Amino acid sequence: MTLNEVTISRAILEEQHRALIDHLEMDAAVIGGGPSGLACAALLGERGVSCALIEKKLSIGGGMWGGGMMFPRIVVQEEARRLLDRFDIAYKEFEEGYYVAKSVEAVAKLTAAACDAGVEFFNLTTVEDVMIRGDGRIGGLVVNWTPVDMAGLHVDPLTMACTCTVDATGHDAMIARMVEKKGGALKVKGESFMWAERAESRILDHTKEVFPGLFVTGMAANAVAGECRMGPIFGGMLLSGERAAELVAERLRR
Amino acid sequence: MTLNEVTISRAILEEQHRALIDHLEMDAAVIGGGPSGLACAALLGERGVSCALIEKKLSIGGGMWGGGMMFPRIVVQEEARRLLDRFDIAYKEFEEGYYVAKSVEAVAKLTAAACDAGVEFFNLTTVEDVMIRGDGRIGGLVVNWTPVDMAGLHVDPLTMACTCTVDATGHDAMIARMVEKKGGALKVKGESFMWAERAESRILDHTKEVFPGLFVTGMAANAVAGECRMGPIFGGMLLSGERAAELVAERLRR
Amino acid sequence: MTLNEVTISRAILEEQHRALIDHLEMDAAVIGGGPSGLACAALLGERGVSCALIEKKLSIGGGMWGGGMMFPRIVVQEEARRLLDRFDIAYKEFEEGYYVAKSVEAVAKLTAAACDAGVEFFNLTTVEDVMIRGDGRIGGLVVNWTPVDMAGLHVDPLTMACTCTVDATGHDAMIARMVEKKGGALKVKGESFMWAERAESRILDHTKEVFPGLFVTGMAANAVAGECRMGPIFGGMLLSGERAAELVAERLRR
Amino acid sequence: MTLNEVTISRAILEEQHRALIDHLEMDAAVIGGGPSGLACAALLGERGVSCALIEKKLSIGGGMWGGGMMFPRIVVQEEARRLLDRFDIAYKEFEEGYYVAKSVEAVAKLTAAACDAGVEFFNLTTVEDVMIRGDGRIGGLVVNWTPVDMAGLHVDPLTMACTCTVDATGHDAMIARMVEKKGGALKVKGESFMWAERAESRILDHTKEVFPGLFVTGMAANAVAGECRMGPIFGGMLLSGERAAELVAERLRR
Amino acid sequence: MTLNEVTISRAILEEQHRALIDHLEMDAAVIGGGPSGLACAALLGERGVSCALIEKKLSIGGGMWGGGMMFPRIVVQEEARRLLDRFDIAYKEFEEGYYVAKSVEAVAKLTAAACDAGVEFFNLTTVEDVMIRGDGRIGGLVVNWTPVDMAGLHVDPLTMACTCTVDATGHDAMIARMVEKKGGALKVKGESFMWAERAESRILDHTKEVFPGLFVTGMAANAVAGECRMGPIFGGMLLSGERAAELVAERLRR
Amino acid sequence: MTLNEVTISRAILEEQHRALIDHLEMDAAVIGGGPSGLACAALLGERGVSCALIEKKLSIGGGMWGGGMMFPRIVVQEEARRLLDRFDIAYKEFEEGYYVAKSVEAVAKLTAAACDAGVEFFNLTTVEDVMIRGDGRIGGLVVNWTPVDMAGLHVDPLTMACTCTVDATGHDAMIARMVEKKGGALKVKGESFMWAERAESRILDHTKEVFPGLFVTGMAANAVAGECRMGPIFGGMLLSGERAAELVAERLRR
Amino acid sequence: MTLNEVTISRAILEEQHRALIDHLEMDAAVIGGGPSGLACAALLGERGVSCALIEKKLSIGGGMWGGGMMFPRIVVQEEARRLLDRFDIAYKEFEEGYYVAKSVEAVAKLTAAACDAGVEFFNLTTVEDVMIRGDGRIGGLVVNWTPVDMAGLHVDPLTMACTCTVDATGHDAMIARMVEKKGGALKVKGESFMWAERAESRILDHTKEVFPGLFVTGMAANAVAGECRMGPIFGGMLLSGERAAELVAERLRR
Amino acid sequence: MTLNEVTISRAILEEQHRALIDHLEMDAAVIGGGPSGLACAALLGERGVSCALIEKKLSIGGGMWGGGMMFPRIVVQEEARRLLDRFDIAYKEFEEGYYVAKSVEAVAKLTAAACDAGVEFFNLTTVEDVMIRGDGRIGGLVVNWTPVDMAGLHVDPLTMACTCTVDATGHDAMIARMVEKKGGALKVKGESFMWAERAESRILDHTKEVFPGLFVTGMAANAVAGECRMGPIFGGMLLSGERAAELVAERLRR
Repeated sequence: MTLNEVTISRAILEEQHRALIDHLEMDAAVIGGGPSGLACAALLGERGVSCALIEKKLSIGGGMWGGGMMFPRIVVQEEARRLLDRFDIAYKEFEEGYYVAKSVEAVAKLTAAACDAGVEFFNLTTVEDVMIRGDGRIGGLVVNWTPVDMAGLHVDPLTMACTCTVDATGHDAMIARMVEKKGGALKVKGESFMWAERAESRILDHTKEVFPGLFVTGMAANAVAGECRMGPIFGGMLLSGERAAELVAERLRR
Repeated sequence: MTLNEVTISRAILEEQHRALIDHLEMDAAVIGGGPSGLACAALLGERGVSCALIEKKLSIGGGMWGGGMMFPRIVVQEEARRLLDRFDIAYKEFEEGYYVAKSVEAVAKLTAAACDAGVEFFNLTTVEDVMIRGDGRIGGLVVNWTPVDMAGLHVDPLTMACTCTVDATGHDAMIARMVEKKGGALKVKGESFMWAERAESRILDHTKEVFPGLFVTGMAANAVAGECRMGPIFGGMLLSGERAAELVAERLRR
Repeated sequence: MTLNEVTISRAILEEQHRALIDHLEMDAAVIGGGPSGLACAALLGERGVSCALIEKKLSIGGGMWGGGMMFPRIVVQEEARRLLDRFDIAYKEFEEGYYVAKSVEAVAKLTAAACDAGVEFFNLTTVEDVMIRGDGRIGGLVVNWTPVDMAGLHVDPLTMACTCTVDATGHDAMIARMVEKKGGALKVKGESFMWAERAESRILDHTKEVFPGLFVTGMAANAVAGECRMGPIFGGMLLSGERAAELVAERLRR
Repeated sequence: MTLNEVTISRAILEEQHRALIDHLEMDAAVIGGGPSGLACAALLGERGVSCALIEKKLSIGGGMWGGGMMFPRIVVQEEARRLLDRFDIAYKEFEEGYYVAKSVEAVAKLTAAACDAGVEFFNLTTVEDVMIRGDGRIGGLVVNWTPVDMAGLHVDPLTMACTCTVDATGHDAMIARMVEKKGGALKVKGESFMWAERAESRILDHTKEVFPGLFVTGMAANAVAGECRMGPIFGGMLLSGERAAELVAERLRR
Repeated sequence: MTLNEVTISRAILEEQHRALIDHLEMDAAVIGGGPSGLACAALLGERGVSCALIEKKLSIGGGMWGGGMMFPRIVVQEEARRLLDRFDIAYKEFEEGYYVAKSVEAVAKLTAAACDAGVEFFNLTTVEDVMIRGDGRIGGLVVNWTPVDMAGLHVDPLTMACTCTVDATGHDAMIARMVEKKGGALKVKGESFMWAERAESRILDHTKEVFPGLFVTGMAANAVAGECRMGPIFGGMLLSGERAAELVAERLRR
Repeated sequence: MTLNEVTISRAILEEQHRALIDHLEMDAAVIGGGPSGLACAALLGERGVSCALIEKKLSIGGGMWGGGMMFPRIVVQEEARRLLDRFDIAYKEFEEGYYVAKSVEAVAKLTAAACDAGVEFFNLTTVEDVMIRGDGRIGGLVVNWTPVDMAGLHVDPLTMACTCTVDATGHDAMIARMVEKKGGALKVKGESFMWAERAESRILDHTKEVFPGLFVTGMAANAVAGECRMGPIFGGMLLSGERAAELVAERLRR
Repeated sequence: MTLNEVTISRAILEEQHRALIDHLEMDAAVIGGGPSGLACAALLGERGVSCALIEKKLSIGGGMWGGGMMFPRIVVQEEARRLLDRFDIAYKEFEEGYYVAKSVEAVAKLTAAACDAGVEFFNLTTVEDVMIRGDGRIGGLVVNWTPVDMAGLHVDPLTMACTCTVDATGHDAMIARMVEKKGGALKVKGESFMWAERAESRILDHTKEVFPGLFVTGMAANAVAGECRMGPIFGGMLLSGERAAELVAERLRR
Repeated sequence: MTLNEVTISRAILEEQHRALIDHLEMDAAVIGGGPSGLACAALLGERGVSCALIEKKLSIGGGMWGGGMMFPRIVVQEEARRLLDRFDIAYKEFEEGYYVAKSVEAVAKLTAAACDAGVEFFNLTTVEDVMIRGDGRIGGLVVNWTPVDMAGLHVDPLTMACTCTVDATGHDAMIARMVEKKGGALKVKGESFMWAERAESRILDHTKEVFPGLFVTGMAANAVAGECRMGPIFGGMLLSGERAAELVAERLRR
């Protein structure tokens, strides 16, 4: 067939432009494309929430690609096995209650699920700040291209409005820290020592709205709460993403 | 439930160790996790070929994540639409014969398909050299951890044997160039100017065994042949991956 | 008044999207925002040519901002004084025939003139390659965001079609070198020693179409021809830009 | 004509030397060549104030070149439209009260206006410190070449005296922070969250003399006051520059 | 003889995998391969303690390789001469009570002794965190490949359990500082001025269990105690290593 | 006891100064502290040859520390088992004829043996050039501190004379390449593909005097000859070091 | 004549070794080779004090080489003119009481004077710490090669004993800050704003013993005292160096 | 006395401006401030030649500061002893015919001599190119600030005219290479192996006019001729500088 380079360019520009315009005002924005963010976004999408996942890096998946110490396997415990099933991630029982999956497959399947659920992905996009108007709640995100920051350039950001924001940025809890640093009533205690059992058992309690409009999930939830870290076991991550989706949906009354 | 950090570590180590040992001798190794490499590996796996995909970076997906100029959309033409369907990638017709998909979804679905087909992924793994014994054909790969190279450390590599090697490393055609640089009878002409139509129509001819045991696919095929480049249209990439899988399977007589 | 951040974002996105779509096919593209490129673009615009100026950096102006050795003054000789007048750049006679202007003003006024003439600016945009189809002439540019390259990311480019391309990239003659490197019938001889008088007197002869569809102007013209360099005197730059505009307009038959 | 390289060099050296000597003692120094600094300097120059604009970078224009997220457009609201007209910057109404201009044109026209008003530009010049003598007011600037700092060299600065100093350095409020850091009675509260409406409505109140001899304008004014940020809307920037010019002129009794 | 690359690879992988699995639960872990860490590990091994030495760098030996100011000699005083003899390190009397040895030999012989004593070495391994469960004592280490950190990658760690941990990380007292930073009841006072005599005479007192499960030795012991530094005299280092081994063995009741 | 920091400093300075002066003229200099260089130096020392080992890095051991892919194990085949015994390196039979040792122990024991044999080590020392006087043979080395080069400083080197030079710098064959680059009659063909069996069987033939006064050993021998590479099997390395020691000793008539 | 490279090397090594050994115990050590350090050292040497000047960089002269803003001229006022005469530095009267000298000549002549006075220079030498024994006074310096630090290597330092230490390290007052940071009873207030007249008039008062055994001179004196900065006028620097020499000599009772 | 910062600034600016203007046309320019360049410039100045020394770095002295391997001593042989005397550099006889001087003193005294002889120094100044007009000889230098290049900025240079140019840039022979690279009839063979005796005996023959208007001295002379290198013996350097001065003076007929 005949192919025209300009048509290809126009197709990409028009489609993505429309997607971006459509998400300048949305129900929920999930920041960070690791396991809890992906699970949360996928489940929000399945509930029909207009939702975008904003990821700083070029690729989606966060710290899950590398498994443990670059051995690309992850472990999930009994309580979260149903989520592996739900997202169609293959696994193998290692010992009773310990299931091993491939980290690459886990990323791919979670991402695929989010896509199927209608989540829009904005990768290479950095959240520089949040928008807080007169009502004192986070009502939007101030975003920029990641490479602008990587290249040390000075370029103004744009703004995307959202009713709910989910901080799924991992250990750094970057959105929560931004709020704290600028004087918002929020304290990020920071992740504590490794203690997998405790970390996994408490994470659902820490998954909640920590500032008007801001929900935390995954390691960001534990970091805000000063909770222990858990290493390469991902059950809590997935369950926390699920919980965050429920809380956000509830807030949006869906 | 009770969770033990050591059991988690052991589960990861044992499982991945077994996977690595199992792939020290395999049928096919695909180098590079971009669209053609993923398609090739997935289709090889579906045919029951013992196959690993070796990727230098932490994440799988290569240059496809960013779409065109960071607008995360890709275009596929009519001829390759059936592959979008086969890999369950959603798309939208932009103009007649031009289909637009989300780049993030394309990566996720291709990777998921390869996982489902039993392909083993070795990410963060760099191919430093190839093994060529007395028969003059490429019979294996000399591999190392990518971070060893990124950190400028001097550490010896290991060797993985494979009957067929597929160079899916994109513009750089890294395996082919390695062979050329060390004196193998192979000339990498380098990618020519942009001319999408020509590049797309010729890529299948260039997808072939270019040195005993070495097949090229995707932009690596065009780079070896001195063919034009095509930009963010991915039909040829997918078709080339499919063709490479057929050629390798034929060579392996499956 | 009431201000809405989302409306601000939408305004920027919609307007620039339209500008980009409108220039995916254009009459002329000038690469490089130094004095010759700006003069050329401004004069093309004044003739009604649909024209974009593509600049790699964030700011327009190239090497003119710094004057000579960071003393922000430039010199223009008698022959080109009329162009200072035309672009409304103030100057002072230093010795007979030597006019001194402020480098900052020169950049600002040339840029302003190009804007007034309807030229569209694409800054932070790198030309990675050219498009050459079956007719063997340069028919478009393969472009990407500059920060993508600065950040060492792997992202595919897009294509903009143009009937005429003007290489105004200075000493490097980047477009001409790209053509040469990929095997086009074009030899870039490289800039010779400093000899201002000779360089200034020959530059108009070197300003021409050096490859089907590709015109060179300013130091790029001298670099292709192996001509001398001239230092911080800018008369020849401006006259060469003017000449390039005439040649392009003629080719476009306007 | 005959051209002599040495005459060209001498012309540049003599003219710029004279300009520098003439500005070792001046009425007003504006630090930072973004929109508010340019507007302020241009309007001071129009009032006959002896004024220099000191810019750290090679190019003038600050963060305005890149528009929002590298889409080179800016937005100005109704209240400031008259300043677009005054500086001859073309615009288009997007929605009622929202006007979109090209960021490149805005920089060029503001800079051109400042040049026409007799402002002297010192680019590539960093303000390292301020001079405060016995009267306790800022009476001058301690300046150095920017590349000296970029290259990590240890070279002493020089001093330029000025009656009024305008900090137009944006978010960083660099001059104000310098004063604060060395113990001056001045507190820089730092920019708050994004809230364009509030930021735009308060900026004029924050544009004032915050320390004897030191005026703040633009985002520096908001940063000192702990005010919200506003993103790529520039009405407040221009109005703040205008206000700063009025205050300085008043102080100088002109 | 016939050699097979795959057998070589398998031999390395199988043997090291076994060693790693065997040390996922061990008696003692010594962090840091400088003189005190090596002496401690060697003497623990000789007592039959299951022990690993974990070193961040590729090579073992820490700061001892370079002697004083790159002159590869070290000095040991009378009190510790017997340890030079024990580890078979040659020396020469310089003045009464001052013995000079080669720094390269000292590293080699101490390392050899630890190997002979059955200590397992994990080099290129970084301790990222410690594991503290409900009993409040350090019960394990959170480890990762050093190059992962050097390359700026985000990869999850694994966990190794150990009954006793010895911080032999030198001036930085990295494990102790980790505990302090995350809120453990431990204060690292930091190394004081140089005063060799005092530093050497006090180091044995500072060698002790400073937090449940955590012992400090060598400069880490002095750093925790706020003690003086001693420079290139190594008697105290060796004696401190010996003392730490005794304390750990006692705790393990062997 | 009483300790004096100045005595400690003096002891180090005097002893190392004497060692350096003593080796300004020596029988043999071995460049590179990897397995073949260490074996060669140890065996030369045992024969009573005045010999120094010059190593660029701070630590001795070269690429052996990291085993294969950071798994710190090495393999030695039957033919070289006796050298493991000779240097007291423990090993374990993996399959018939394949012996696995710990890489850390191998470095430590080889280094210890060289120390015991009276070899002087100059670490952190870079060979910048060679001395070739009227007789056309390499009669000395031009050396400098490695950190001088790492820090990009311009400092003149010093010269050490030696009758025989052994290039044990591994793949790079740095001394041989230096001679080649400056026009000496020597061609470095560069290492070929991986083929362990061939590489191991040919290395002894390639271990020889390749230029008057210059012997090559280990991977440097194979690199000069254009021979294959062998990966983490070290039998050939050790045997080559032994052979080089014999050849040098013969040349020195001992 | 006949020249032997080894004799050249030996000559350098023997002579410098002797110089270093001779200065392991000395009367005074001046840290920093800027104007005040050089003047102080030269005048100490003239009084017969055994003295070394220790300079971090390769070259001596500090920040004086670059004059003001890279224009290599310095200014000295009337009060210090006699020191220009004393050190044989040529000058020119610019206005009454303002003398201009060449910065290059000033460095060269001050350095030459110090050499003639018998001062020993240790360049490329960093002071890492100070030695403080039981008497609580600074009795020596802990030194290392600067490139060791520049290259990020871990190498132990050596110690040089001295009765008096002069901190002439400029703005940073590095020795004083070291003492402060480790808990010594000394507060470094940091340099204040620019006010040349005040800075020059107070510097002699600030030149004094600020901690037992530690004297400050030049900008280090003003930095400790929280005094103003003075820019490229050097009278106070030279006078402060002279005063420091007097104080040190007095303390040494010479 | 009263001090005014602005007068200080003006004094520096006016004096240096005059010096620069005065040297825009001069008899001789020496590029490179190492030993041969300094000796040449000093002796030219003594003969009344109008001469500037242009040095890329901030400090003068080149590679002489560091002596040999950072031991700050240099050696001079009998033939050049009279030049040590002439420049008042103290020395000590090590063995017959070998004189050892302090490298710091050598730099200081040579620089002082050049200053006394009226040589003007332009440090931090890079020669980017040469000016060659119709007569085919080098008639000037194209210069820029070094930090401009270090900071990666794009700023135009200025031109200084000179009748004779002396390349004293050391091993790199930068001016000669510039001429060669742009097609001038000059071949730079590059420095050969170390052989001090030969290098020292031939350097005077190689010190000559190698291209119309271009003289080479010091290591640049040997590098152009493909001669041996000599290490830290400086007799030949000084004698070559003297010879270059004679040749230049002769050409200028003085």
